[in-house]
Amino acid sequence: MILFKKNVGKVKVIPLGGMNEIGKNMTVIEYGDEIVIIDAGLSFPEDEMLGIDIVIPDISYLVKNRDKIKGVFITHGHEDHIGGLPYFLKKINVPVYGSRLSIGLIEVKLKEHKLENVELHAVKPLEKIKFKNLEVEFLKATHSIPDAYSVAVHTDQGIIFHTGDFKIDLTPIDGDVMDFHRICELSSEGVLLMLSDSTNAERPGSTMSEKNVGKGLDELFTKAGESRIIVATFASNIHRLQQIVDVAKKYGRKVSVSGRSMLNVVSVAKDLGYLDIDDDMIIDLNEIDSYEDKELVIITTGSQGEPMSALARMANSEHKKIEIKKGDLVIISAHPIPGNEKLISKVINFLLEKGADVVSCDIADIHVSGHACQEELKMMLRLVKPKYFVPAHGEYRMLKRHAELAEEIGMSEENIFVISTGDVVEAGIDGAAVKGRVPTGNILVDGLGVGDVGNIVLRDRKHLSEDGLMTIVVTISKDEGKVLAGPDIISRGFVYVRESEDLMDGAKQIVRDVLGECEEKSIKEWAYLKNNIKDQLKEYLYQKTKRNPMILPIIMEV
Amino acid sequence: MILFKKNVGKVKVIPLGGMNEIGKNMTVIEYGDEIVIIDAGLSFPEDEMLGIDIVIPDISYLVKNRDKIKGVFITHGHEDHIGGLPYFLKKINVPVYGSRLSIGLIEVKLKEHKLENVELHAVKPLEKIKFKNLEVEFLKATHSIPDAYSVAVHTDQGIIFHTGDFKIDLTPIDGDVMDFHRICELSSEGVLLMLSDSTNAERPGSTMSEKNVGKGLDELFTKAGESRIIVATFASNIHRLQQIVDVAKKYGRKVSVSGRSMLNVVSVAKDLGYLDIDDDMIIDLNEIDSYEDKELVIITTGSQGEPMSALARMANSEHKKIEIKKGDLVIISAHPIPGNEKLISKVINFLLEKGADVVSCDIADIHVSGHACQEELKMMLRLVKPKYFVPAHGEYRMLKRHAELAEEIGMSEENIFVISTGDVVEAGIDGAAVKGRVPTGNILVDGLGVGDVGNIVLRDRKHLSEDGLMTIVVTISKDEGKVLAGPDIISRGFVYVRESEDLMDGAKQIVRDVLGECEEKSIKEWAYLKNNIKDQLKEYLYQKTKRNPMILPIIMEV
Repeated sequence: MILFKKNVGKVKVIPLGGMNEIGKNMTVIEYGDEIVIIDAGLSFPEDEMLGIDIVIPDISYLVKNRDKIKGVFITHGHEDHIGGLPYFLKKINVPVYGSRLSIGLIEVKLKEHKLENVELHAVKPLEKIKFKNLEVEFLKATHSIPDAYSVAVHTDQGIIFHTGDFKIDLTPIDGDVMDFHRICELSSEGVLLMLSDSTNAERPGSTMSEKNVGKGLDELFTKAGESRIIVATFASNIHRLQQIVDVAKKYGRKVSVSGRSMLNVVSVAKDLGYLDIDDDMIIDLNEIDSYEDKELVIITTGSQGEPMSALARMANSEHKKIEIKKGDLVIISAHPIPGNEKLISKVINFLLEKGADVVSCDIADIHVSGHACQEELKMMLRLVKPKYFVPAHGEYRMLKRHAELAEEIGMSEENIFVISTGDVVEAGIDGAAVKGRVPTGNILVDGLGVGDVGNIVLRDRKHLSEDGLMTIVVTISKDEGKVLAGPDIISRGFVYVRESEDLMDGAKQIVRDVLGECEEKSIKEWAYLKNNIKDQLKEYLYQKTKRNPMILPIIMEV
Repeated sequence: MILFKKNVGKVKVIPLGGMNEIGKNMTVIEYGDEIVIIDAGLSFPEDEMLGIDIVIPDISYLVKNRDKIKGVFITHGHEDHIGGLPYFLKKINVPVYGSRLSIGLIEVKLKEHKLENVELHAVKPLEKIKFKNLEVEFLKATHSIPDAYSVAVHTDQGIIFHTGDFKIDLTPIDGDVMDFHRICELSSEGVLLMLSDSTNAERPGSTMSEKNVGKGLDELFTKAGESRIIVATFASNIHRLQQIVDVAKKYGRKVSVSGRSMLNVVSVAKDLGYLDIDDDMIIDLNEIDSYEDKELVIITTGSQGEPMSALARMANSEHKKIEIKKGDLVIISAHPIPGNEKLISKVINFLLEKGADVVSCDIADIHVSGHACQEELKMMLRLVKPKYFVPAHGEYRMLKRHAELAEEIGMSEENIFVISTGDVVEAGIDGAAVKGRVPTGNILVDGLGVGDVGNIVLRDRKHLSEDGLMTIVVTISKDEGKVLAGPDIISRGFVYVRESEDLMDGAKQIVRDVLGECEEKSIKEWAYLKNNIKDQLKEYLYQKTKRNPMILPIIMEV
């Protein structure tokens, strides 16, 4: 236990993402004039965020307090924990700490973003990173990616413990079980506040060990016989990859890899020693024709049905090197993330139509979650025994359920804070409370633009997506207000113009009438004219079609 | 058994929807110069069908053969079976046959479409509608709407039997069980070909009886105590409504109804005697404030999280008459249709945040499917014993699984046809085969337009939705090719213009350069000029933003 010289007030815990939402996890721990940040994730756009690539947290609070920031502490290498890092580091270049694998995956990411001069530290569990009033310690956690950590931030007010994403896997593939003893020590030292993963808080029982998947895969490999086997899974689940490799080895099959992210991860994991595979077992996709079907396993991306993924390309006959054929066994070793059900179903239909057999986790034990269910969450609460509890990482329904679990094991309601992204929890020896908020929001990344797509642009995209647009151009003489050319009408995404000539003629006539009227009355206020055209066209088009295209009148003065 | 005078060839079975897809069910049975049509459904637009309201089958084959058509025979009143009817009848006005409830629901629909002079026939089970070479008979089926039918089309080649949507509910709410005896008689007469509902062909076991839901509801009503109860479910599931009403009565609660479709169905079902509710038990939404919470049950639409539904409006505080408050018990008595998971989750989060308790079918027995699972499907195959079998209503994966079930009970592979919408199955005493195809497709309905939105319009909408557009207008003198006004640039859905002045200035400069070059070379081919502007702007914008807005150059000649 560490003792600090002076009490510098309460500890602030500020989530900048991941509360009341899935993804873009980022938590600020602030004590005195020091800040440490846990994770810097991204989230994927909601359906209504048209054209957006990814979403990252608003970090304006950190920009304002950049001098306090000591570093970013990464729990594990999933996108919702490291995906926002390049954008963060472009604005605030501070040291990044994490496990060897996390740092390896971050290096790939920074290279893609051409980010150099970032201080990266691979840290082992129990190693402590000391600052003036804070001390940060990583603990081994088990999750669906190896080398995942929980984080303990030591202060003289007590410890802030963040589980990170976790499940309690008692038989993990790498044998590296969670450090329950150290957790108990921390508990004895005094955990002031715990943040814990709520993803599966609505699911009763316990999550199965990753090892279970090995058995399921083995059974399928036995049944596969002479067939070629294609396994789709999450690239980052290296333990899953290891199990596929192991069972492939057992059945004398070579392994080939398809999909950019899968190739990236396999390469990093192999180099760093997280994936154990003989060099002669792994073959290039170009070589697969030299092997018989029964000698092959192809590991691929696309377990979520992503339209551009390798598996989707195979299903659509758009993959350059792999053609699905009758008898192929396709194993989808993943569970659909909510929202992806239809995409996956589409891929499965196409694979079946091509004659493949498809096995998904509905019908075989070939996937387990990476997150703790209710029994594990309660166990974590029992082990850590925090004074205050903040359910983290999840939608409101999950956070609330997690809070209820804490009450079930005896925590009192006023010590549990179900909060939103941006809420500030201040905790100290003499109490804790939610005090104020910091700026937050979804920063939308579209191409090279970070934050330049806002509500107005999105609203226009939505409008355009539903009913298209109609542009009306007319050239008018400056002096006399006479129409010199036009009105010309161009429409896109509205109706098929060739079959709508009457409609277009009617629209032109409406514009001509408005122009004529204005000419007659010598009105030269173009704003007035434009609004008039807009209103009258809008009414006309709605009456004729019950649609509301965006109407863009343009007046050129000559 | 009926005996016809002459053999007029083989019977054609042609699905115009519902095969290899979910929804817009419509099946043509053609024999000699007579056609009967089973159902005329709609489907809801796929994600990529931007701005589309509904989708209906291509009926050009029927338009071409309209003189043969004897009528449309409706199995039941769900949208995917009757929703396309108004559009069909506007083109081909033929008699419509169905159960009393189906016809009642169709009447409401035709009124909304201002369709008059349609011949509607309410027909009882076992009643036969005779034509020259065909005879149509309805049989009672159990499904998630009362008064559902299977259809038997008698020909001298044997019977074509279409199950319609069904489950085998041995304890249906109305006591009206399927007519197994008549099915067996038909089987003895000889069923040439059966089409059977494949929706749940991937699910083992049997679907629970609707009656089970009653028990689940009763338990929740007991627990509810003093709380107000709000139940969301499918409007058309009148047996579900009946059970809610019954349990409300038992616990001394009044019933109020919210949501347009729910009001419609309750009114029709009450008028026709399908919903048994005392007049003094049903109260207007305006009166609910006169009752205590414990005296109320509100039945509402929105069980799929539909953004404009009554439940979603309650969750978003946009409902004019109902405000969710702490302690309200919201029961979602439905299962998410694939694709709706996130919508529902959003509604649940908002309800919970307002302090309501939410119970969904994950955590209580408050929903059962309306479709037969594997054991029921095999039972149907055993009872009907068709010579040929066409799995119907489902995606490929379901049709294929259903075909496998038929093989499992001993049917030979060559007697089973897994077909697509538009495939023609010809069946007769001396054999059956897939012979050719008829035109098919998705006819998109957008506002008043039926079929006027095609691939080009959709592609443009998609393009516009992702990156918006940039319009460039310039006025040029006819004789000299000199620029008289512009270039003016207007963009929507691309970038927030006020923060992108440099980008816009750069774009204008590019256009000016192209115009200058053309002026210099006296090029007056506007198509060439436009393409040049487009190409150069596209490259410039992509390089600067990694986005591809739609670029619309417009040249006005004066």
